[in-house]
Amino acid sequence: MRAGIIGVTGYGGMELFRLLSAHTEITEVLLYSSSRAGKELSEEIQHLSHVQDQELRSMKELPSDGLDIVFSSAPSGISTEILPSLVDENLKIIDLAGDYRIKDADTYRAWYKKEPPPQTLVNDAVYGLTEWKREEVQNGKLIANPGCFPTAALIGILPLLKEKVIHPASLVIDAKSGISGAGATPGKGTHFTQANDSLSIYKIHQHQHTPEIEQTIQTCTGSETKITFHTHLVPMTRGIMTTMYAELTDSVTSESIKEIFDSYYDSEYFVRVHREKANLFTKQVYGSNFCDVTFAVDERTNRITVVSCIDNLLKGAAGQAVQNMNVMFGMEETKGLEASPMFP
Amino acid sequence: MRAGIIGVTGYGGMELFRLLSAHTEITEVLLYSSSRAGKELSEEIQHLSHVQDQELRSMKELPSDGLDIVFSSAPSGISTEILPSLVDENLKIIDLAGDYRIKDADTYRAWYKKEPPPQTLVNDAVYGLTEWKREEVQNGKLIANPGCFPTAALIGILPLLKEKVIHPASLVIDAKSGISGAGATPGKGTHFTQANDSLSIYKIHQHQHTPEIEQTIQTCTGSETKITFHTHLVPMTRGIMTTMYAELTDSVTSESIKEIFDSYYDSEYFVRVHREKANLFTKQVYGSNFCDVTFAVDERTNRITVVSCIDNLLKGAAGQAVQNMNVMFGMEETKGLEASPMFP
Amino acid sequence: MRAGIIGVTGYGGMELFRLLSAHTEITEVLLYSSSRAGKELSEEIQHLSHVQDQELRSMKELPSDGLDIVFSSAPSGISTEILPSLVDENLKIIDLAGDYRIKDADTYRAWYKKEPPPQTLVNDAVYGLTEWKREEVQNGKLIANPGCFPTAALIGILPLLKEKVIHPASLVIDAKSGISGAGATPGKGTHFTQANDSLSIYKIHQHQHTPEIEQTIQTCTGSETKITFHTHLVPMTRGIMTTMYAELTDSVTSESIKEIFDSYYDSEYFVRVHREKANLFTKQVYGSNFCDVTFAVDERTNRITVVSCIDNLLKGAAGQAVQNMNVMFGMEETKGLEASPMFP
Amino acid sequence: MRAGIIGVTGYGGMELFRLLSAHTEITEVLLYSSSRAGKELSEEIQHLSHVQDQELRSMKELPSDGLDIVFSSAPSGISTEILPSLVDENLKIIDLAGDYRIKDADTYRAWYKKEPPPQTLVNDAVYGLTEWKREEVQNGKLIANPGCFPTAALIGILPLLKEKVIHPASLVIDAKSGISGAGATPGKGTHFTQANDSLSIYKIHQHQHTPEIEQTIQTCTGSETKITFHTHLVPMTRGIMTTMYAELTDSVTSESIKEIFDSYYDSEYFVRVHREKANLFTKQVYGSNFCDVTFAVDERTNRITVVSCIDNLLKGAAGQAVQNMNVMFGMEETKGLEASPMFP
Repeated sequence: MRAGIIGVTGYGGMELFRLLSAHTEITEVLLYSSSRAGKELSEEIQHLSHVQDQELRSMKELPSDGLDIVFSSAPSGISTEILPSLVDENLKIIDLAGDYRIKDADTYRAWYKKEPPPQTLVNDAVYGLTEWKREEVQNGKLIANPGCFPTAALIGILPLLKEKVIHPASLVIDAKSGISGAGATPGKGTHFTQANDSLSIYKIHQHQHTPEIEQTIQTCTGSETKITFHTHLVPMTRGIMTTMYAELTDSVTSESIKEIFDSYYDSEYFVRVHREKANLFTKQVYGSNFCDVTFAVDERTNRITVVSCIDNLLKGAAGQAVQNMNVMFGMEETKGLEASPMFP
Repeated sequence: MRAGIIGVTGYGGMELFRLLSAHTEITEVLLYSSSRAGKELSEEIQHLSHVQDQELRSMKELPSDGLDIVFSSAPSGISTEILPSLVDENLKIIDLAGDYRIKDADTYRAWYKKEPPPQTLVNDAVYGLTEWKREEVQNGKLIANPGCFPTAALIGILPLLKEKVIHPASLVIDAKSGISGAGATPGKGTHFTQANDSLSIYKIHQHQHTPEIEQTIQTCTGSETKITFHTHLVPMTRGIMTTMYAELTDSVTSESIKEIFDSYYDSEYFVRVHREKANLFTKQVYGSNFCDVTFAVDERTNRITVVSCIDNLLKGAAGQAVQNMNVMFGMEETKGLEASPMFP
Repeated sequence: MRAGIIGVTGYGGMELFRLLSAHTEITEVLLYSSSRAGKELSEEIQHLSHVQDQELRSMKELPSDGLDIVFSSAPSGISTEILPSLVDENLKIIDLAGDYRIKDADTYRAWYKKEPPPQTLVNDAVYGLTEWKREEVQNGKLIANPGCFPTAALIGILPLLKEKVIHPASLVIDAKSGISGAGATPGKGTHFTQANDSLSIYKIHQHQHTPEIEQTIQTCTGSETKITFHTHLVPMTRGIMTTMYAELTDSVTSESIKEIFDSYYDSEYFVRVHREKANLFTKQVYGSNFCDVTFAVDERTNRITVVSCIDNLLKGAAGQAVQNMNVMFGMEETKGLEASPMFP
Repeated sequence: MRAGIIGVTGYGGMELFRLLSAHTEITEVLLYSSSRAGKELSEEIQHLSHVQDQELRSMKELPSDGLDIVFSSAPSGISTEILPSLVDENLKIIDLAGDYRIKDADTYRAWYKKEPPPQTLVNDAVYGLTEWKREEVQNGKLIANPGCFPTAALIGILPLLKEKVIHPASLVIDAKSGISGAGATPGKGTHFTQANDSLSIYKIHQHQHTPEIEQTIQTCTGSETKITFHTHLVPMTRGIMTTMYAELTDSVTSESIKEIFDSYYDSEYFVRVHREKANLFTKQVYGSNFCDVTFAVDERTNRITVVSCIDNLLKGAAGQAVQNMNVMFGMEETKGLEASPMFP
């Protein structure tokens, strides 16, 4: 199999390259760039200097390069421009940006402040939350790879919504992310001296992952609902934790909640459900494709708290993209993703 | 004025010493320790090596040392043991531990897993949330200095509860703290290699600051309620941010919320209310006694989010203690607390 | 006294503003900016929102504003352009950039890759390493405030060079700096995700502080020498440590070395000499104007190691600038710089 | 092949377990502990919860467990006690502690302040700096795996010493390490709040890795010399950088130095020699077994600077141990160590 990556100098692209280079079914990985075509990989990425060097190729060469799959790690907005011309019978596409995730064009416009891609392409795109959309992914041509926050939140909360043990309208998602989630382009808020030793909140009530979570709750559980969702920047490189709060529909035991989680995830390699009230920490999934989950029933308030964590660049981006590729091509789902979390 | 500090080798004690040494109304600061009496200050604290050295004194000497005020920065449990014998007509006491904060003995036992101090002392203790209890503090003899999380949460949320614009029962407090909040004693969870580059959640639904927040909501606003409160450890030294979620009782405008906050805090030097949806970051209060607040009304869900941040060792501990001392002795409330936040 | 600051949105300028606002002899601080004139201070700096807001003034207004002193925190190169026109009988100037530090024009060109300012101005400029140039500073009109690395290195090593106990030609300075030293402008190397959890080395043998150190060794001790000097970026906000290595001219005892340091610094408030082999850490000077020093004689190799640390934004920039102002105006040297280091 | 690990709850042991679990030639990994025998792995290590759980075995069971190889990650001193009884014809041993590295008993006593193991065992132990001792390792029974600092320093400097282009007596090694190098046991200096946002120096002239470096310089290049070596703690989890300074014996060109490095390391997979004056950063080797090297000739001073960096837990501990195992058993040297560095 031959794979292409658009945008290798972004963090998602770098991780894709690392994963695909070690994937035993991939024989070649070609790299494309619109802004840096012609440059050598080694000029851009010092940590992979042991890998055979190669020139970043122009996007124009891609259609005739005979790839089986292409991963686009280009930023939001760019995917809208470049992917339509790549759609072709023999090329599968996995897009890591948000452009093809939101089915409703007006919703997309409202949250992204941009024009969406052609509606037919959006309609055909499969939302690649692998554990919940496996069959669709298998038959997909264009995968809209989920956002990092939605991945962590949805894996944690969907079982309870599906089983109707919580009120959808009461859902509050307090998310925290490492700073690699903001990408590789320097800016004021991600300048080391600004971000170090400090915690910040941003985009209160305005994060574009909000409609993605709402839409997936609807398609996976049938509940139409509005959620509250905020994000915080944590002075760490990788990792997302979502702390989610909801009212229980009924009084339940911790055991029954654990059983629900287990029934959904016992056979899912990449979801690790921990005992109630486990002290989760993001580094326990660092460098891996795992999503770890815990929960706590609070009898005092009849609420439940669900906590999940992922490595935002892996299960939240490149890892889940490779997982989706594995599913699309009928390979073992864990192939290329066997790495255990690295701690400390 | 002559002041004493019990527990100078803890972080609260260190900061008290730094503040009191620079306070123009304090002529002498004596240091007491149960475990390290007889040692020189300079053996314990390298960063204050320019200050005149002194020997840590035994607790036994304290009653006859003729102090005007003593600050106890001893850990929870120890205050219960040592403070009763210090109560005296001419000595004012400010306790930074949780022992004298909870009025109901059974509640204390349930959350602290310890026996409370004598009930009469607890009854007489004044809860020193300065902005909300100024008159009681003025007349207090024994101040129970508030916990770090309750200080941040209550300053942010009390105006809205008092004005009944939010449903008390819907209140969810998601708190994040720098690691100095866990104290100066090394442990597994606060080992650098464990905590660095990682975010963790701990004590889900079990944090002992929960009843303190509930009790103060009750005494300040009349609402008896149960809240949901969790804490996270953030890989930074200082700083607390609380992100608070509540349902609005009615539809309100952002302007009216801003007016409420301003009406409570316009004349409060240490509370800085920012515009709606300001991107707060904890370092904007680093090293100062400020509590910064912002909020965001969400029309989509009819909820409000309130965000507050403090330096946990200052407004959340030593700073508020000095503020209380200033009030007790009729001094200017900002004396010794004039330092602006230090950024970056 | 009325003071002006050029470049308040840089880190040196921010700290100058914080220090001068609290300085009891300064009645007014005016702020100037070439690129942001007309903006409100509060738009630029969130952490000082309690301070009376003011508009950033145009540089053109400066000459007629009747200031007693102006601090220029503009970047290297800009000082060369703007300071000559400000020189005036009644205005003292302290420049925090490197432009006026190097007396020899060719040396300046070789290391800075820029044209130097007019030679007469450079000749008149006083190198403001306060502890070693106090008399010149007293009479100075234009102070070239020392660089952060030279300040730390020179305070540590000058006594031994002056007393000829080490060979000047053997001097190796291995310096480490927090990332605020790279300034407030975002860039690739100071992007949080690049710099966090990582240590880097840069500008090997090419750092422009090299000739500044060599020149000052020459003016203070008479030794003309070439040194080896490198810098590393440490994932922390503030702080510089220099670890310096040199061959001893003779066999000496630790006691005699300690005596040398004490003889130079016993009466210097801002230099704290610690016992031999003290485990220095940069945070022991955080937020203060101190320079801490230790040393270790190695009989095995007949070498000595000297270690010094400072807060790069204070003793390494704004703090020393205020110290120089105090000296120039005959005020107490510690005025406005009394803050103890803040730990943790 | 069946492998055992003593001390899996230390960081070296954890990494060994992660690497060996993924090593395709290892069919079983048994875990031993003196202090925690009987506990489940999952109680101790949360990040590997997807791995089949197992009970930590008592040391007593080890001799009869029929292992092919045992890795000891027990602390210094303990190896001296427990390894002699394990020596057996059919068991190969790799010890990660310092106990068997120093050939001279008095030197060991002087630097380690402990009694060394039996001299015959020390004599037979092979110092496992793989690139320089490959043949001895092949035939070794007991491998003394090198220390983290010596590994980084020696790989960087040995080619120049061997080729006699630098004066051995002039060698100064300034080393910086992430805090995982201090181990998993909490202590004051590695408490997050003490170490974060701060750089410290420790054990000046007294680090026990000094004689290990000197001894290996002697065995590999024939030069008997005394070096100057210090270490600093950097607020990061993993990574070591050594910055090394030496006088050139003659004037040399950068090209000739590059040729020397290439001649030694062109065929060494795990050593990546970069161009002169490359801006190395420790994270470019994070999670990998690479040692990256750069250098810079300084014509001004006729000195050379050599810089090297490794992941202290991999090439500096567990990674090199696996590399040595691969060599001992005639397997491909990179097996189980193929992971590319993980950045960011």
